[in-house]
Amino acid sequence: MKREKVSTAVIRRLPRYYRNLEELSEAGTVRISSKALSSAMGITASQIRQDLSCFGEFGLQGYGYNVESLRREIGEILGVNRGHRAILLGAGNLGRALMENFHFQSCGFLLEAAFDVSPALIGQTLAGVPVLDVAGLEEYLAAHRTDVAVLTVPGPVAQELARRLAQAGVGGIWNFTNIELAVPATTAVENVHFADSLLTLSYMILKG
Amino acid sequence: MKREKVSTAVIRRLPRYYRNLEELSEAGTVRISSKALSSAMGITASQIRQDLSCFGEFGLQGYGYNVESLRREIGEILGVNRGHRAILLGAGNLGRALMENFHFQSCGFLLEAAFDVSPALIGQTLAGVPVLDVAGLEEYLAAHRTDVAVLTVPGPVAQELARRLAQAGVGGIWNFTNIELAVPATTAVENVHFADSLLTLSYMILKG
Repeated sequence: MKREKVSTAVIRRLPRYYRNLEELSEAGTVRISSKALSSAMGITASQIRQDLSCFGEFGLQGYGYNVESLRREIGEILGVNRGHRAILLGAGNLGRALMENFHFQSCGFLLEAAFDVSPALIGQTLAGVPVLDVAGLEEYLAAHRTDVAVLTVPGPVAQELARRLAQAGVGGIWNFTNIELAVPATTAVENVHFADSLLTLSYMILKG
Repeated sequence: MKREKVSTAVIRRLPRYYRNLEELSEAGTVRISSKALSSAMGITASQIRQDLSCFGEFGLQGYGYNVESLRREIGEILGVNRGHRAILLGAGNLGRALMENFHFQSCGFLLEAAFDVSPALIGQTLAGVPVLDVAGLEEYLAAHRTDVAVLTVPGPVAQELARRLAQAGVGGIWNFTNIELAVPATTAVENVHFADSLLTLSYMILKG
């Protein structure tokens, strides 16, 4: 697979393809033309063909795409079948909202533990996930392969925790803090910047 | 201002410019070369010049940018000084996390009310914001100009609430549900798709 050559913009569209194909598959759609997929997703058919061509040959001229097989192939590209293991740092409101409502498993992740500093939370089980003392983070990471850490801690402690996670070899940080984390390139960071999103909406409502 | 011609990609970079300029301004930086701004943001200097040229003339050859004035102008473009008014629907964990930790005001929004269906929450004040009965939504909207509604409700009720918000003339929906909302073009929708973000991270950690 030609992973190295794929642009960020293409990569960011892959989850949307995956999500839409999942919905089509659940709705019982067996095959779809590139035109119909295009109008369902609001992406031009030629853009879809171009995006998918980064990863190989998909679809057949005159037939379109087999929904379930394309879903499975894109899932493979995204790594949803790798059995990724995740932990969550910071079991406050946002952390708990993710633990209780976000389907880690449908993204291919198993959320195995949460960490916090609060004695009231440590030792509890939230949404089936044990809450551990963040003081034991390194010990836990040495014993449990961990691919991704979800960072839902207060801003002031985010950078130091990111450093500890990277040092312990955690491959990715899903960063919900508004801090731009500085970590070695061996640890990937995906930011959920709420403020950027709301400011984009702020711009959009001015246009109207 | 040439708003209509600006691409989504440029618009999505504006909040990042704004955030970085805010940090530079707070750190006391008075002016910055396009090269230094470029390396601080990980965007090429020519991309920055091209992005900003969509909105007018900024910066001076040989001087660079005045940080505070550029921050103010981009803030103006984004509408941070318009006194936008927001409400929040769904005061569960995620809603409360936003109410307690997200700085609506630094994005130029005033969060004026939250709505929920739970009798245990209605009548309470959370993070200084009154929680009202969602049954009274239309009555509230008729009496209070509302620019944006933050949607942090369970998926199954999202579409119906979006319809009610659009019908009442709310200009934008900040959608935290995993539902693709169908609303008239007069209501802008900005999605925070957690799953897309985690799947992108899933891809990134496979690359390494």
